[in-house]
Formats: sequence, structure tokens, C-alpha cells
Amino acid sequence: MTGTLYGVGVGPGDPELMTLKAHRLIRSAPVIAYPAPDSGNSFARAIAAEAISAGAEEIPMIVPMHAARFPAQEVYADAATQIALHLEAGRDVVCLCEGDPFFFGSFMYLHRRLAERFPVEVVPGVSSLGACAAALGRPLTARNDVLTVLPGPLPDTELRAGIKAAEAIAIMKVGRHLGRIRALIGAMGLMASSGYVARASLGDQTVLPLSEAPATAPYFSMILIYKGGDPWLT
Amino acid sequence: MTGTLYGVGVGPGDPELMTLKAHRLIRSAPVIAYPAPDSGNSFARAIAAEAISAGAEEIPMIVPMHAARFPAQEVYADAATQIALHLEAGRDVVCLCEGDPFFFGSFMYLHRRLAERFPVEVVPGVSSLGACAAALGRPLTARNDVLTVLPGPLPDTELRAGIKAAEAIAIMKVGRHLGRIRALIGAMGLMASSGYVARASLGDQTVLPLSEAPATAPYFSMILIYKGGDPWLT
Repeated sequence: MTGTLYGVGVGPGDPELMTLKAHRLIRSAPVIAYPAPDSGNSFARAIAAEAISAGAEEIPMIVPMHAARFPAQEVYADAATQIALHLEAGRDVVCLCEGDPFFFGSFMYLHRRLAERFPVEVVPGVSSLGACAAALGRPLTARNDVLTVLPGPLPDTELRAGIKAAEAIAIMKVGRHLGRIRALIGAMGLMASSGYVARASLGDQTVLPLSEAPATAPYFSMILIYKGGDPWLT
Repeated sequence: MTGTLYGVGVGPGDPELMTLKAHRLIRSAPVIAYPAPDSGNSFARAIAAEAISAGAEEIPMIVPMHAARFPAQEVYADAATQIALHLEAGRDVVCLCEGDPFFFGSFMYLHRRLAERFPVEVVPGVSSLGACAAALGRPLTARNDVLTVLPGPLPDTELRAGIKAAEAIAIMKVGRHLGRIRALIGAMGLMASSGYVARASLGDQTVLPLSEAPATAPYFSMILIYKGGDPWLT
């Protein structure tokens, strides 16, 4: 009997936004893997920390934040090799994933390496989309809106096209692109429809109109645009 | 002291995909509100059923499925009046929301009526997006993909424009539009990149290539398109 690899979404940051299923799997996992930066703590591990059993073996996947090539595939190749040894020995492995495993997640790099050889189950999690809308107190989408999710690192031409084509827009991974994106949104006349959220659901969450956002943003920050103004008006 | 209104996402269907926070709030809620069809059971209530305390007062919001005008605002107006009485009396009210409250959810109709007068907190939930990607075993989005979410009832011209402009596409609320949407996707040459999921995360979940989807689909069904073919190839 081989073990099962679980890709488990741990949600946007507040540990209470883990699902019951994530909590159960993490508590009973003999082996826990998670992405971690080359300096500092793993965000995914921090979210799940309370649930990890003291005896669990841990496999941090150290992903260099400033690698020449993104993603650092050799990191996932090494981790997949380690994880495969546990699975072959019949031990389940839980891989902790920020937010939802398949929504801009790095879990796919393990999935592609292991899903043909071992049972793999993905446990969806609360994504930052819902957490940011909740923080803003404003619906993300209503009725028959088109929602477009744009990664902030995209060039202005692609961001502009995406923003033009939808009623509701979420721009993820804003980070160091904040100034450029804010200028673009201003030039498009959408500043008043735009909200800024950083570190949604965490104790130091920031929620502001985009016009009042700080000059620099953390990687985990998002801009939500709702063109309809008040999405509650029918 | 007035009570607080909680808009609580209960996730896509599997009760274990409720968050720890949703579970805690539902268990301790003296008053529970939820949308319900005019015949049959409330899906949101069914997901949360195990957690609802025996003594809780329940406020079903009966939404006619075939109302001449959608949404039936008088239903939410009546519910808001009932809920306001509880909040004024200092009782917290938990409103159960399928998936995530602010992702195509009807909770906004209560929020708009009550958020200026009472404390309102939105608790994000696992949306069907992540649940459908998990069911398909395929990433929803990777790296710097653009994701567009399209409601199935939109006319072909709008669906076509949305599908053309993104790498990853989720078409929600497919239901009775399945045949039309499948024909459109076929005409665009994207059939091989398209998956179909109905009732994600439930015991009777259906997961199929779109080409093999049944002739009719339930309301809670989704089509996911990933143009890159294999999103795992770098």
C-alpha cells in the first residue's frame, strides 16, 4: 500500500479559515511538506502551525525568492524525490499550500511529478479572492458579472486589456508593481472604483481605497476593481 | 449592544470543506438564515446541517426559482426586517452562503440592507472554482495566467470574447446552457482543453472531459478551459 499525497489549501492567512478537512489531514499527517523562503518563515507552515503534530517529519521546500529562473524547478524535483520515498513506504504526505492549491499555487509542480505514480488528492482552500472581498466589505461579483483575475507582474498593455473587458477585476501579486498599476488605473479613470487589501484575514490586514494605498505593497496584496460603483444596486 | 450579522461561506458542498470559523459560528448561532428554493431543501442548510444547534431559530429565505424578476428583492427585504429585529435584540445572526458569500452570492442583498445599521462580518468560504479544479486534478491558473470567470447565461458574443482573452476560463452556472456553450467551445477549437464538473466535492460529483458531458447539466455545474493544454509544462 503506497501513501497518498494531499495538496491541502490552508487558506489566506487566518488559521481559522482552514477547512475542517485541512485541519484533520494536517493533524494526522506523519509527513508535512511546505514551501519556505530562503530566509524567514514559511507562511503556509505558520498558518497551519497549531495543527501540526509534534512527531511529524517536515520537508521544507526552500524556494529562492530571487532565483534567476522562476520557478526553481530543481527544488520541486528534490522535494518530489523525498516525498516519493515516504509514499512508497506507505506514509501519507500533506503538502501545505497558501490559499487554494490550484489557484496560482506551486503545488502543481509536485502534482505533475507524482500524480502518475501515486494517489494524489487536492483539498481546495479559501483563496485570497474571497478574503479580500470580505475585507473590503464589497461583493467580488454579482449576478452575471464577468470577473477577470490578473497577475500584477503583467505588462500594462495586458493589464489594460483585461481591466477593460470585465466588470469586476482582481489584480493579484501586486507587491512592487503597485505604483505602476495604480498609475494605470488612474489613467483609466477607475481610481474611485478600486480598493487595496494587503495581508487579508491576518491581524495586520490593511484595507484602503486604492488612492490611499501606501507607496510600497507586500507581495500578498491585491487590488479589486468594481466598475459598477455600487454592486448592490440592481 | 446589538448583535452581529455574519455572512458565512459554507463551501462548495462537502461539509468538511467548511472553515473552522464557519463551523464555530454556526454551532453557536442563536439565529440561522439561509436561502431555500420554493420546493425542496436548502443546499446551504444541508451543507451546514450537522453544525446547527437544535435550539437555533431558523429563517429560511424562500427564493422562487422561476420569479419573473431575478433576484426576488422582496424576499431579501422581508428577511432583512426579520434579521434586524434579532440584531436589535442583541442576538447574532449567521446567514449561510453556498461557496463564498461575495462570489456570485445573494448575501449582498442582505448586506446592502443591513451593513449601515449593524455590524456585519463576512467569512470567506471555499468557492466552487477551487473545488472544480481539485476535482479535475488540474491547476486552475499557473504563473502569470489571466483567469476569466464567465456566467454561463451570458450570450455567445460575450462568452466568446471572454474565452478569447484569457488563458484560463471558468464558466459558472452552466445548467441549461450546456448545449449552447459546448457548441461555442467546439467552434472555437477548444474542446480538448475543456473539462466539465457537476456537484463538485459532493458524493455524486461528476467529472468529465467536456466532450463527454451529459446532454443536460444541473445548475451547479462548471466548465473549465485551460488553453495551454498541459498547464504543468514550463
